[in-house]
Amino acid sequence: MGVKLGILGLGTVGTGTVQLLQDLVGRHPLLQEIEIYRVGVRSLSKPRAVELPEGIITTDLEAIVNDPTVDIVVEVMGGLEPARSLILKALSHGKHVVTANKAAIARFGAEIFTAANQAGVYVMLEAAVGGGIPVIQPLKQSLSVNQINAVTGIVNGTTNYILTRMQTEGSNFDDVLADAQKLGYAEADPTADVDGLDAADKIAILASLGFGGRIHLEDVYCEGIRQVSKTDIAYAEKLGFAIKLLAIAKRTFSSPSSPLSVRVHPTLVPKAHPLASINGVYNAILVEGEPIGQVMFFGPGAGAGATASAVSADILNLVATLKTSTTNPNPLLACRHQDYCEIAPIAELVTRFYARFLTKDRPGVIGKLGTCFGNFGVSLESIVQTGFQEELAEIVVVTYDVQEGNFRQALAEIRNLEAIDSIPSILRVL
Amino acid sequence: MGVKLGILGLGTVGTGTVQLLQDLVGRHPLLQEIEIYRVGVRSLSKPRAVELPEGIITTDLEAIVNDPTVDIVVEVMGGLEPARSLILKALSHGKHVVTANKAAIARFGAEIFTAANQAGVYVMLEAAVGGGIPVIQPLKQSLSVNQINAVTGIVNGTTNYILTRMQTEGSNFDDVLADAQKLGYAEADPTADVDGLDAADKIAILASLGFGGRIHLEDVYCEGIRQVSKTDIAYAEKLGFAIKLLAIAKRTFSSPSSPLSVRVHPTLVPKAHPLASINGVYNAILVEGEPIGQVMFFGPGAGAGATASAVSADILNLVATLKTSTTNPNPLLACRHQDYCEIAPIAELVTRFYARFLTKDRPGVIGKLGTCFGNFGVSLESIVQTGFQEELAEIVVVTYDVQEGNFRQALAEIRNLEAIDSIPSILRVL
Ligand SMILES: NC(=O)c1ccc[n+]([C@@H]2O[C@H](COP(=O)([O-])OP(=O)(O)OC[C@H]3O[C@@H](n4cnc5c(N)ncnc54)[C@H](OP(=O)(O)O)[C@@H]3O)[C@@H](O)[C@H]2O)c1
Ligand SMILES: NC(=O)c1ccc[n+]([C@@H]2O[C@H](COP(=O)([O-])OP(=O)(O)OC[C@H]3O[C@@H](n4cnc5c(N)ncnc54)[C@H](OP(=O)(O)O)[C@@H]3O)[C@@H](O)[C@H]2O)c1
Repeated sequence: MGVKLGILGLGTVGTGTVQLLQDLVGRHPLLQEIEIYRVGVRSLSKPRAVELPEGIITTDLEAIVNDPTVDIVVEVMGGLEPARSLILKALSHGKHVVTANKAAIARFGAEIFTAANQAGVYVMLEAAVGGGIPVIQPLKQSLSVNQINAVTGIVNGTTNYILTRMQTEGSNFDDVLADAQKLGYAEADPTADVDGLDAADKIAILASLGFGGRIHLEDVYCEGIRQVSKTDIAYAEKLGFAIKLLAIAKRTFSSPSSPLSVRVHPTLVPKAHPLASINGVYNAILVEGEPIGQVMFFGPGAGAGATASAVSADILNLVATLKTSTTNPNPLLACRHQDYCEIAPIAELVTRFYARFLTKDRPGVIGKLGTCFGNFGVSLESIVQTGFQEELAEIVVVTYDVQEGNFRQALAEIRNLEAIDSIPSILRVL
Repeated sequence: MGVKLGILGLGTVGTGTVQLLQDLVGRHPLLQEIEIYRVGVRSLSKPRAVELPEGIITTDLEAIVNDPTVDIVVEVMGGLEPARSLILKALSHGKHVVTANKAAIARFGAEIFTAANQAGVYVMLEAAVGGGIPVIQPLKQSLSVNQINAVTGIVNGTTNYILTRMQTEGSNFDDVLADAQKLGYAEADPTADVDGLDAADKIAILASLGFGGRIHLEDVYCEGIRQVSKTDIAYAEKLGFAIKLLAIAKRTFSSPSSPLSVRVHPTLVPKAHPLASINGVYNAILVEGEPIGQVMFFGPGAGAGATASAVSADILNLVATLKTSTTNPNPLLACRHQDYCEIAPIAELVTRFYARFLTKDRPGVIGKLGTCFGNFGVSLESIVQTGFQEELAEIVVVTYDVQEGNFRQALAEIRNLEAIDSIPSILRVL
């Protein structure tokens, strides 16, 4: 037997990976060189869906990363610690690492890749973004001959599931969330998904690979979907848009030296755009570059099988590397960048906006809105006013491209207008 | 300077590739190791869109593939000969080859890969299918840990453009084809595209990679789009389908040892299916496997820039290999299979069908149709009859899954019914 794996974690992803590696018919023959040597867990008494020979499962994870016979450590335990320390220890002992842990990579990527480069080993993370979708390796290899201009993704299945159901059923966020929790599509504590934090981790990773620089997670602007109402979804629909939680990394102007804008927020996506029809728990990542144009990767963003496919693909790559390479690092597998990307503040973003206003029954309220917008150079693409309800009218506007800072200043002025009752929603438009 | 390229051809793809390699800002730094050493063309007097130093452009293509200083030969001249002989010569001299030539690979793949394996070099063909879309490498690497069940693609931009326009404009095939030729979206001789031959070449290549076996091109069943009428597109639309020219490679039953069905034909695709909304010249390839589920790759299927991206990605991969590998072949880059796949005849295909009948005004014609179908075990999912025109009524049926052979026998019987005037269209349904 050739290559010895030490797997940290035997939950959803770990179990899926072991199942894949235990049934090799019809798969790449190189997988036959792999031996599942140790699997680390928290509890020895928990029932497991896979059978492993005596002595393989252990609670001593330190021993796995320190064991000189382990060639590859597969970290599928999740969480920040002890995952971070175990990864660093494995690297310092010259072991390659495969991880599905976007939270750890988005936070400790710099430390982890530095350690890997020093040790001359690789950290593979296909499963960290987009579940089974092969997107990390294409970004590192095939697409890297392009000047990348933008990476735009629907990278969180839970929020896409919620928004899809809100759209098709006309339901409220709270109701769909509660039901999604019952059905297992959302966690008991939904914060990481619903507030966009998981998507922020993922776009930080994609941006880093696409643009060849490190990303400070704090520089990623992040807005979740709690504020998206069924009213907005209905208006968006009427105006020809679907509302999606997009994770976007984009050059602020079209030059390879321009700063990036990296952000997560609910977004009105034109119906004809390829991302508008990505529904349910599916993920999709759209990459735009020169000269390739637009390519999109679509598939299941989570789940035992899909994620196991990505983890196993990384293992396969490392086995191939172990069998063929000299001591020179393979520049297509190594993480080549050490500098940080310059990130523009959200106020400098140039985008279209959607805003919904509740106004009192005053003559000329549309004119006043228009004047305030005009004062800050905001041009309106469309404006819709609907009937009065309880003395209040609803006005929905979509702007042309405008700098976010200017738009916010106009809003501040509008908020002070006597005729304005409130501004229940403000969303960006792709 | 490190790696020396000999490029055969400086047309659309060759020029795009040279342009990419001459402007390296923002691209993978490894591309800086590449030297464009020779470029072979037919005519020295033709004006070129790229500038190259004196002496690089030559009409002596034999000299390029025989030159010991050339490391990688990039075949972007197209056609069967002399492309085949030049590729074989390059391989026999130990040079890696990058090619965009699906016609040559689909026909001479066995010969070419055998020669490459003997010489210990690689033949890379990302650009041969799906233009810029990274799909060959994911199939060879990331996705190869899955048991692949099906690869389904819209892989010919010309026919997808024609079908999309027929659908949106309600126009006839002949009119759209003529206009597409005027606009440069279809060639003067449209046979390779319109009759499905180009798509057949591509699905043979995809099937070979996806299922790990060689494919005899003659085993690929092939039907083009000339018979698709605007009437069928309108009926399909009403029934909830778009008509697409699909290239399909699929296990006939779900076991890794089952024969494949490999085929190209116009197909009714349910509107909610991810391939139904791929419009215009875009391509998309949907891969289904266990445990990954469905993943789809979408992007520009042709064009100078997109194809240059794929060619350059292959070159980059080879440069990385040249810099890191020992003499062991990299099993992720080598083409690992030597056996042929078993292909089931089209008569054994199990699929749904759409058929349109013109019937004379006879009582009980639907009953008679139903009886004939029933005799051969064909169940009907829907049946639509429309008003009479010039004494003829139109009946459209969609069947449940049925074996193609049985369906054809039922049709033969139906054709003999006195009430049946003609059967203008028969299409498969996804
Ligand atoms: N689930 C998905 O669809 C998915 C998709 C993409 C990426 N990921 C990522 O994959 C990773 C794993 O996710 P998962 O869903 O498989 O998690 P999970 O089901 O909660 O499994 C975690 C596993 O790690 C073990 N573990 C956790 N902390 C441990 C500790 N301190 N000491 C020893 N063992 C410990 C657990 O042991 P016990 O079994 O003994 O409790 C369990 O086997 C996470 O980083 C996640 O973000 C998951
Ligand atoms: N165009 C696309 O979008 C696309 C997309 C995917 C794949 N491909 C594939 O890429 C390949 C090239 O396509 P292309 O569109 O670039 O073709 P093209 O524009 O016709 O260019 C062909 C080039 O090869 C040279 N050439 C052809 N036969 C030759 C011979 N016998 N001796 C010397 N030089 C010869 C021509 O020389 P001159 O310039 O002197 O005439 C020309 O530079 C084909 O296999 C095609 O299927 C093309």
